[in-house]
Amino acid sequence: MQVQTLKGFRDFLPREARKRDYVKNTLKRVFESYGFEPLETPILEYDEVLTGKYGEEGEKLMYRFIDNGDRKVAMRYDQTVPTARVVAQYPDLPKPFKRYQIHPVFRADKPQKGRYREFVQCDVDIVGLDSALADAEILATVTSTYKALGFKDIRILVNDRIVFEGLSPLSITILDKLKKIGEDGVIEELVARNECKNAVEAKNLLQSILDQKPSVRLQEILNSSTKMGIAENTLIFSPTLARGLDYYTGLIFEVEIPGYTVGSVCGGGRYDNLIGMFAGTKIPAVGYAVGFDRTYEAMEELNLFPEEIKQATAQVLVTIFDKSLEKKSLEISSQLRLNNINVELYLSNTKMEKQLKYADQKGIPYVIIIGPEEVEKNVVTLKNLKERTQEQLSMEKVITTLQ
Amino acid sequence: MQVQTLKGFRDFLPREARKRDYVKNTLKRVFESYGFEPLETPILEYDEVLTGKYGEEGEKLMYRFIDNGDRKVAMRYDQTVPTARVVAQYPDLPKPFKRYQIHPVFRADKPQKGRYREFVQCDVDIVGLDSALADAEILATVTSTYKALGFKDIRILVNDRIVFEGLSPLSITILDKLKKIGEDGVIEELVARNECKNAVEAKNLLQSILDQKPSVRLQEILNSSTKMGIAENTLIFSPTLARGLDYYTGLIFEVEIPGYTVGSVCGGGRYDNLIGMFAGTKIPAVGYAVGFDRTYEAMEELNLFPEEIKQATAQVLVTIFDKSLEKKSLEISSQLRLNNINVELYLSNTKMEKQLKYADQKGIPYVIIIGPEEVEKNVVTLKNLKERTQEQLSMEKVITTLQ
Repeated sequence: MQVQTLKGFRDFLPREARKRDYVKNTLKRVFESYGFEPLETPILEYDEVLTGKYGEEGEKLMYRFIDNGDRKVAMRYDQTVPTARVVAQYPDLPKPFKRYQIHPVFRADKPQKGRYREFVQCDVDIVGLDSALADAEILATVTSTYKALGFKDIRILVNDRIVFEGLSPLSITILDKLKKIGEDGVIEELVARNECKNAVEAKNLLQSILDQKPSVRLQEILNSSTKMGIAENTLIFSPTLARGLDYYTGLIFEVEIPGYTVGSVCGGGRYDNLIGMFAGTKIPAVGYAVGFDRTYEAMEELNLFPEEIKQATAQVLVTIFDKSLEKKSLEISSQLRLNNINVELYLSNTKMEKQLKYADQKGIPYVIIIGPEEVEKNVVTLKNLKERTQEQLSMEKVITTLQ
Repeated sequence: MQVQTLKGFRDFLPREARKRDYVKNTLKRVFESYGFEPLETPILEYDEVLTGKYGEEGEKLMYRFIDNGDRKVAMRYDQTVPTARVVAQYPDLPKPFKRYQIHPVFRADKPQKGRYREFVQCDVDIVGLDSALADAEILATVTSTYKALGFKDIRILVNDRIVFEGLSPLSITILDKLKKIGEDGVIEELVARNECKNAVEAKNLLQSILDQKPSVRLQEILNSSTKMGIAENTLIFSPTLARGLDYYTGLIFEVEIPGYTVGSVCGGGRYDNLIGMFAGTKIPAVGYAVGFDRTYEAMEELNLFPEEIKQATAQVLVTIFDKSLEKKSLEISSQLRLNNINVELYLSNTKMEKQLKYADQKGIPYVIIIGPEEVEKNVVTLKNLKERTQEQLSMEKVITTLQ
């Protein structure tokens, strides 16, 4: 019997689950501040809704099976295709449809560091509108997202797919590698893969891309972004940025965190030919996906989780001195909860030492003791476990301290 | 091509998704106020982890398949078995382990009114402790849960499995039907199914159960509940309440909402023989599950969703008067967001009439207009779409109104 999770799947025990909730809640708050609304779609779909949408490679990574009613079904692989289905199925949805989704998706990928078979995707999109303002708002939302998570400094590399007009997909893929393999690497590969006749031609091609200026549309987007409050040095024009070819049709961008070297934490752009796949019409769209696991990892590395999130859910453990004083502990717990304080009550009569040890194990920062002396003086003893201090306080003082 | 969801699966468009989020967030807040902590487990598990745990009927309803790596896997059927796995897999988790989970589970059940193939379960449990205080805290958490959701009046029917000691499973099942089929019905069925020799014996059996007083343990639980602040008339001793046999070992309870007739919205109890299934030891546990869909439905029927939840995410739509005044609208949107107001900016230049219609369609309650007159006077026009009023206000006044 395997008492374990499948490879590529994870349990999140309370400490991690709390931090993940913190990230999700922060994202939701930012998305909603821009008027994006939540959308939920099922985890299982008809196979034919998902199949044929993710290319040959994607197809292999899908969880597909026959259900008990002999239907071909598949598990959610991303949130874009289900959104396209929703847009076709509910044509009365007011446009632009501004929605976000923060849900798990499933890919039977080779598990490796940072790559999982079940992981959370956070998608934010403006569907049904092609405007520079929409593009700019997406960049503004990205900026607010990372600011709200505590990142002091982010770089958004931006480009417009138009710079690659007339180039072959392979050439674009090679140019996109500039940051990884350097100018010489790009030139070499352009020649080796027969995209250019010789090094001179390859160098000229690369230089012609590097010499590009932001397109008129991109310039308009950047201007509006600035008016929306994005600091100018956040946005960096990167003419070789490609982000996969067949998907995007205009603006493309990636977010990098100085000091976090694993890779970009977020990316997106305009993709006007995808969302209409079921509706049978062209439906413009622009959006981005927060890389949840990478963003979480970057927050860990830069120590951006607030102290109270790293502790236990309960701010205080109310202990029980003995059976005769139990009533007092129950009442005080209720009183604290009414003042919006998260309270764990110790739920059995046992040695005070054991109760204190439990608070320590769980990372609960404060402990309250109500013994006969405290009852007589009409106070409680509040212990700060971290600073190893304690004092006798009135309930009002305790509430103020814990709030 | 099926542009539709599978039967028994649901899309939740923004209006519903927002209300569902409201319920989930309220539950989380209450659970955490008692020190319960979040836990996340995967949606896919090894088949052998789940199989054999839900009886013959349950087994048929599981989504089981072979994955791309030829592993037998199954989709999450409930949250109790994965929790039992977690408890065995991480023996160092401090006990009592107080956790909650609000996640989707999957059952290939016949879809019918109120029964779905993917639905949210909300479980709250205290694992690793057998005490009357733990039982009482579960009842207190239930009470706080429904109070926080806005229910003025709930009934918690409580019982202790001990009242059925010595009775056959079938007799207990029949006695449990008292509310549905009445005393005569119970007596008739006890005789018809050969659980009693005749009507007199059956009547005596029923009467002996009805005459039971709360057990010593149940009395202790009820006393502690009262000290925790549960109104005495909330808890109703119901000696024929059984809630399925093989699972519970002590306290059992169900929550009923006066005025909501579909059935109980929540249930739970003590189950000391289940959580240790993987650990190979007895691990006591007590907890409950909020029936998410029924609770949601009862809230709809009793009109308990706050007005602002029923509207759009955005509190206000900031319109764009014309291209020359666009900058002003962008700045004002940012300013409002900095004051924690959810703002949707209209993202293209179009007729004011169309912009107003969009706000109306989406249910955004307020609209801001900044035209040349407003700019000159250093005010904005704030339209209240519901009351069909409008006034010119300074930004400070607008912020106060919208907050």
